[in-house]
Amino acid sequence: MSEVTWKHSLSHAPLRRIELGNGLALGGATGHTLMMAGPCSVESEEQIRAVAKMLVERGVSVLRAGCFKPRTSPYSFMGLAHEGLELLEAVRAEFGLKIITEVRDATQVDAVLQTADIVQIGAKAMWDYGILGAVGAAGKPVLVKRAFGATVREVAKIAEFILSAGNESVMVCERGIRSFEPDTRFTLDLCGVAWLKQHTNLPVILDPSHALGERYGVPDLARACVAMGVDGLLIETHPCPEEALSDSAQQLNFEEFRAMHDSLSAVAEAVGRTMI
Amino acid sequence: MSEVTWKHSLSHAPLRRIELGNGLALGGATGHTLMMAGPCSVESEEQIRAVAKMLVERGVSVLRAGCFKPRTSPYSFMGLAHEGLELLEAVRAEFGLKIITEVRDATQVDAVLQTADIVQIGAKAMWDYGILGAVGAAGKPVLVKRAFGATVREVAKIAEFILSAGNESVMVCERGIRSFEPDTRFTLDLCGVAWLKQHTNLPVILDPSHALGERYGVPDLARACVAMGVDGLLIETHPCPEEALSDSAQQLNFEEFRAMHDSLSAVAEAVGRTMI
Amino acid sequence: MSEVTWKHSLSHAPLRRIELGNGLALGGATGHTLMMAGPCSVESEEQIRAVAKMLVERGVSVLRAGCFKPRTSPYSFMGLAHEGLELLEAVRAEFGLKIITEVRDATQVDAVLQTADIVQIGAKAMWDYGILGAVGAAGKPVLVKRAFGATVREVAKIAEFILSAGNESVMVCERGIRSFEPDTRFTLDLCGVAWLKQHTNLPVILDPSHALGERYGVPDLARACVAMGVDGLLIETHPCPEEALSDSAQQLNFEEFRAMHDSLSAVAEAVGRTMI
Amino acid sequence: MSEVTWKHSLSHAPLRRIELGNGLALGGATGHTLMMAGPCSVESEEQIRAVAKMLVERGVSVLRAGCFKPRTSPYSFMGLAHEGLELLEAVRAEFGLKIITEVRDATQVDAVLQTADIVQIGAKAMWDYGILGAVGAAGKPVLVKRAFGATVREVAKIAEFILSAGNESVMVCERGIRSFEPDTRFTLDLCGVAWLKQHTNLPVILDPSHALGERYGVPDLARACVAMGVDGLLIETHPCPEEALSDSAQQLNFEEFRAMHDSLSAVAEAVGRTMI
Repeated sequence: MSEVTWKHSLSHAPLRRIELGNGLALGGATGHTLMMAGPCSVESEEQIRAVAKMLVERGVSVLRAGCFKPRTSPYSFMGLAHEGLELLEAVRAEFGLKIITEVRDATQVDAVLQTADIVQIGAKAMWDYGILGAVGAAGKPVLVKRAFGATVREVAKIAEFILSAGNESVMVCERGIRSFEPDTRFTLDLCGVAWLKQHTNLPVILDPSHALGERYGVPDLARACVAMGVDGLLIETHPCPEEALSDSAQQLNFEEFRAMHDSLSAVAEAVGRTMI
Repeated sequence: MSEVTWKHSLSHAPLRRIELGNGLALGGATGHTLMMAGPCSVESEEQIRAVAKMLVERGVSVLRAGCFKPRTSPYSFMGLAHEGLELLEAVRAEFGLKIITEVRDATQVDAVLQTADIVQIGAKAMWDYGILGAVGAAGKPVLVKRAFGATVREVAKIAEFILSAGNESVMVCERGIRSFEPDTRFTLDLCGVAWLKQHTNLPVILDPSHALGERYGVPDLARACVAMGVDGLLIETHPCPEEALSDSAQQLNFEEFRAMHDSLSAVAEAVGRTMI
Repeated sequence: MSEVTWKHSLSHAPLRRIELGNGLALGGATGHTLMMAGPCSVESEEQIRAVAKMLVERGVSVLRAGCFKPRTSPYSFMGLAHEGLELLEAVRAEFGLKIITEVRDATQVDAVLQTADIVQIGAKAMWDYGILGAVGAAGKPVLVKRAFGATVREVAKIAEFILSAGNESVMVCERGIRSFEPDTRFTLDLCGVAWLKQHTNLPVILDPSHALGERYGVPDLARACVAMGVDGLLIETHPCPEEALSDSAQQLNFEEFRAMHDSLSAVAEAVGRTMI
Repeated sequence: MSEVTWKHSLSHAPLRRIELGNGLALGGATGHTLMMAGPCSVESEEQIRAVAKMLVERGVSVLRAGCFKPRTSPYSFMGLAHEGLELLEAVRAEFGLKIITEVRDATQVDAVLQTADIVQIGAKAMWDYGILGAVGAAGKPVLVKRAFGATVREVAKIAEFILSAGNESVMVCERGIRSFEPDTRFTLDLCGVAWLKQHTNLPVILDPSHALGERYGVPDLARACVAMGVDGLLIETHPCPEEALSDSAQQLNFEEFRAMHDSLSAVAEAVGRTMI
């Protein structure tokens, strides 16, 4: 690929290492596969503390949870917004977890930048240039989710946008693309992941929960993702998925999460990596 | 479909009529197919005046041109921004054309709302809730382009977002979706258009220029679009496409535009409509 | 495109004219748009004669109907097979209609070649090299349906297979491809049709019935297809679609067919063609 | 799913075990992940013997190689046909390998049934009812490749066709589907594999070579496939891929194959299976 259009994300540059603070890092030569887990949405203090407690007990370092939800219908739950960010800050203070949370559009990017340890640009916001400008100017690590209608080349170019603006801490996430297959919510594109690993220096994160859209196959897919040798996973888990206000079908309950999590270290080791 | 989730865009409501000012209207029982044409980007005063002059000579009422371009690469031309909006205002004052222009993200939505007669939400910004909130609160007509990774049901729900916020003047635009076909830039989805006509009351606009991505088939596709009985067309035309700063391959030169435009009225009449 | 791989179907060769017998022709410089209509399947003598009678009354020259159905489930109606071919021959003798009927696989290609005036290779059989060999060696006109998972380049290469074997009478048919859109059965690809018209000399036929999969939008789509300036249409019609043994949802009843058919001539004339 | 349409492939039936002869089995409760490897095409006695020798040295039991190639262009190498089958029989006699080889269409299905230990129905022939009838009546194990335009439900129904005809030894293979992503040849659909494992009792085989279409990512993808807990792999390997007459870009040379193969056992063990 042309070096002119891919100055910062070229594969023959060294693999990109991202520092998350307190000695936590991913990408580069770390050999880490980082678990980031939590509910789709922050719903209440009780709910988010329950998740945080479970994660800390299992040695997971990063909590994922959304406060600004880009829902399809105007009549759906849109997240707790700023109240949710406050709950995340409280949980971080109490449990020492890193926080990855989503920015929905440019109107709340400053607030999210203040709270998040990793700013997540969601699949529906990948081309939001208001967000890209703000995170490019800030120093915080950024995770860009590939839009479900975007090519791998396009998500790499969005990373290039942020990198060329001066923010060196950019990772990309494959979370399933649209295909003609109607019986799964999306199609997890591991061929695209192979392309990203071959052609860019960007850390790659995988989100099997959103790809399948139902909990039954998430453990199998999570193991396949780890075996691809990627830098991290995003997994949805909730104390009571049946009562979740969003993504009810795909969140694992704690028992399911623990069983899946227990199985990942051996797979990581089989491909020469360490699950953290 | 459930009336709860589709209160405003249901098909058994009367077809939605949108007033554009000065007696110009589309949708409802007007029977109009409205031509909206112009370059991909405003590039200079000379360029945009040349287009405006040509359109006025042909009786076209609406000029399309973008000032905030959501380009894929950070090293591409991103549009003239606020300077472009000023050029569009000058052209409107001189030629009496209505202006449709694109908002890229929430950071410039107020400026675009001030200049535009029709605010265009581009395909990459369909899920930008910052934009949706702002145009929902404003009174201006809005054209929502279907994201190339979105279903027809999803674009109808975005219309529902704006309608439920109180703005009654919403139309949707099909401009091609992603498919596995590699030899055309996108795939114009007329089956989806049939669904929108059957299931919603929203005016439907078609954009064959972006669908094919090359000028050779635009006239055939434009005639097919008119024969579908839709409410309007968006067509890209430029005084010198070879020198265009964006979308060079798909813009028609003036001669090509005139030849195509000449052929549309007969097709519109054959399906009981009037090309305006 | 390379002349080596496209010797026979190249666009800068003259447009390909196909003789159907009794002075009936399509493609080339004829300017004809040929209507081919009939039920999905031959179901009974009474049914197929009712359709034939209606078509003859309207001046339609070609009857379509299948005897070997490539159904998805082993428990579905698979067609009347050789008994169906006999019914088609009887109808031809009585009504003077040309017959287009489908070959499902190589085991019945000789029988179909004997009965059909135009042999239809269905979408699921596009890559059946047993069929391709047999029709390439025979003189009968062949209609190749683009597989719903095939690119336009691939359907053109299948035409090249037959042409290079010595059969000069090959036309291709777009009948909808698979896309991520779940609310329509397939996605009619008119951008692909524009590509075929630009890059090959093959007559192009369109089948809007299979594309949408529901009758409501077939008339609008049929008019759009005619406005594309193509060489023919395939339309499904049945005396009583609710009782059809296959494709019940998409077949027009006779009243719907007549209303649609009445509207097509004006569209054809608007684009300089004649509906026959 | 309805038991009426899925009598034989229902998931709440016991997992289907398939005997390959000489004590070799897959599926059911075996816990085996079976390696099947070899070149895209049989090209010469020297080539196929070199592959067989390498496989036997590594303890691989099943050789894959095609004699009837369903190529896209009429001017491409179409395989050695019956001469190729004879070479495969000689190799089997000499090396004691099982043979999986492809049937292209109904005209050579009897010959392939005679030679093959496992008959492969290729992706382009999935809906070839002439083949389905013949293999349904025969006793040989059958591997059905999912067409790249087919849903998982459709490939399961093709298995149902063969099972309902009396052949109990059917496995299905995911080899990549068509998607909008242009930078990889196909898109390996592991979400679809999760669906097949959840909803059917069919052994599932994965073919990462055809999915990606380039060798660089095949090892990563093969490890991900094994981690999904599937029943087997199909991998393309050739003594000199640069000189291969088909699929040159995606075949591994022997050194690459050995390195990949060495890494798979640990992954299989990490998910409680045995690589054979």
